[in-house]
Amino acid sequence: MQIAKVRGTVVSTQKDPSLRGAKLLLLQFVDEEGQTLPNYEVAVDSVGAGVDEWVLISRGGNAARQVQGNDKRPIDAVVVAIIDTIYVENRQIYNKKSQDR
Amino acid sequence: MQIAKVRGTVVSTQKDPSLRGAKLLLLQFVDEEGQTLPNYEVAVDSVGAGVDEWVLISRGGNAARQVQGNDKRPIDAVVVAIIDTIYVENRQIYNKKSQDR
Amino acid sequence: MQIAKVRGTVVSTQKDPSLRGAKLLLLQFVDEEGQTLPNYEVAVDSVGAGVDEWVLISRGGNAARQVQGNDKRPIDAVVVAIIDTIYVENRQIYNKKSQDR
Amino acid sequence: MQIAKVRGTVVSTQKDPSLRGAKLLLLQFVDEEGQTLPNYEVAVDSVGAGVDEWVLISRGGNAARQVQGNDKRPIDAVVVAIIDTIYVENRQIYNKKSQDR
Amino acid sequence: MQIAKVRGTVVSTQKDPSLRGAKLLLLQFVDEEGQTLPNYEVAVDSVGAGVDEWVLISRGGNAARQVQGNDKRPIDAVVVAIIDTIYVENRQIYNKKSQDR
Repeated sequence: MQIAKVRGTVVSTQKDPSLRGAKLLLLQFVDEEGQTLPNYEVAVDSVGAGVDEWVLISRGGNAARQVQGNDKRPIDAVVVAIIDTIYVENRQIYNKKSQDR
Repeated sequence: MQIAKVRGTVVSTQKDPSLRGAKLLLLQFVDEEGQTLPNYEVAVDSVGAGVDEWVLISRGGNAARQVQGNDKRPIDAVVVAIIDTIYVENRQIYNKKSQDR
Repeated sequence: MQIAKVRGTVVSTQKDPSLRGAKLLLLQFVDEEGQTLPNYEVAVDSVGAGVDEWVLISRGGNAARQVQGNDKRPIDAVVVAIIDTIYVENRQIYNKKSQDR
Repeated sequence: MQIAKVRGTVVSTQKDPSLRGAKLLLLQFVDEEGQTLPNYEVAVDSVGAGVDEWVLISRGGNAARQVQGNDKRPIDAVVVAIIDTIYVENRQIYNKKSQDR
Repeated sequence: MQIAKVRGTVVSTQKDPSLRGAKLLLLQFVDEEGQTLPNYEVAVDSVGAGVDEWVLISRGGNAARQVQGNDKRPIDAVVVAIIDTIYVENRQIYNKKSQDR
């Protein structure tokens, strides 16, 4: 999985019927120091992530379809977790609480 | 999924029999600010996308085969939605209507 | 799918038994203007493509196995179509006939 | 599979229910000479890997779900082995024992 | 598939149980002119490839599991063929025999 930051949302009315009701988040990848990278991904959210939160994104259709409700959707990326903390060599480099405003 | 702009079409008569009737779109990736990127993809369209529209593209054969009619096709990319609007941190950065000519 | 140009063939006698009879093409990717890119791929051909022809290549094992005869092969790339024409914004940028010598 | 070094852990409480109990490791890729690369991956551990160990990481949801306990998880990366030694042209370039402190 | 050169082996005792008996090769990618590229991959060998041989590597778990004995292994890369010859536009650019010492 990759670490990404929720930046916004994508809205579509003309889409594959299976996508009705799917919340599409625009995610920007970040490196493990929290620097934003130029890459982004649009993923289906099923954990209730909001703007500025750091999440784990899982890619590939086979992975995406394991999430309940996604099993027939033609999607290749899902948000599988909202990150609380990241530790590198026992040093805490990210903490969701200290980011909240 | 990635955001891409429809640039054109690809036509083929000598192809895998399962691809008969499939509309093949040439898509160019755009970044979240709408700048076109050098990468492109040829994808099967099933939502009726036209030239210059912004779409969501889903990649990987497992994802592509979830779209009705594609379940036996040897394809690795499909257009799954035409984008209406993109919001980044509650700012609207793309609106299909204001792009229409 | 990606656009590629057939450059040559790869021959192997010591291989997975399922690959017997498979024709392995060496393909070089081209961008949508026809410029050759440094990347290449070896793919199984099932549409009868020849050297210098432009083809569509589909990648990922799940996609590759949809082609008849490939369903048990450990392959990750197949040629699914020989391209006749490519249109970008209604301008024809490639035509197989005008390339033939 | 790719060679990576265990750097730390990622903790999440709000996540896909299937991920309960999964240990999420932050892994940094290394090249075959052991130089750390800028890329990282978050993977589920099932072999008991610890910080600073070199491991093999397997990616893609279809691969990840072959590990016992992962068959219904929406994950795209798993640690499948802790590396003992790496030989290049019969020269030993990595040995876990000589790295232990 | 990609063309790679066998560089060495990776040894692991603490690993997913399904990997017992699997031979793990360290492979370095080469371009079609035989120049070694910085990328490498660790793949399961089932065709008996040795150091310095050129092979075809197939990636993606779905492809890897088509090889007999691999159907339950959490792997994402396999060696599927040892290359004898490569032809580009009818010119032979690689011949295994002339490489043997």
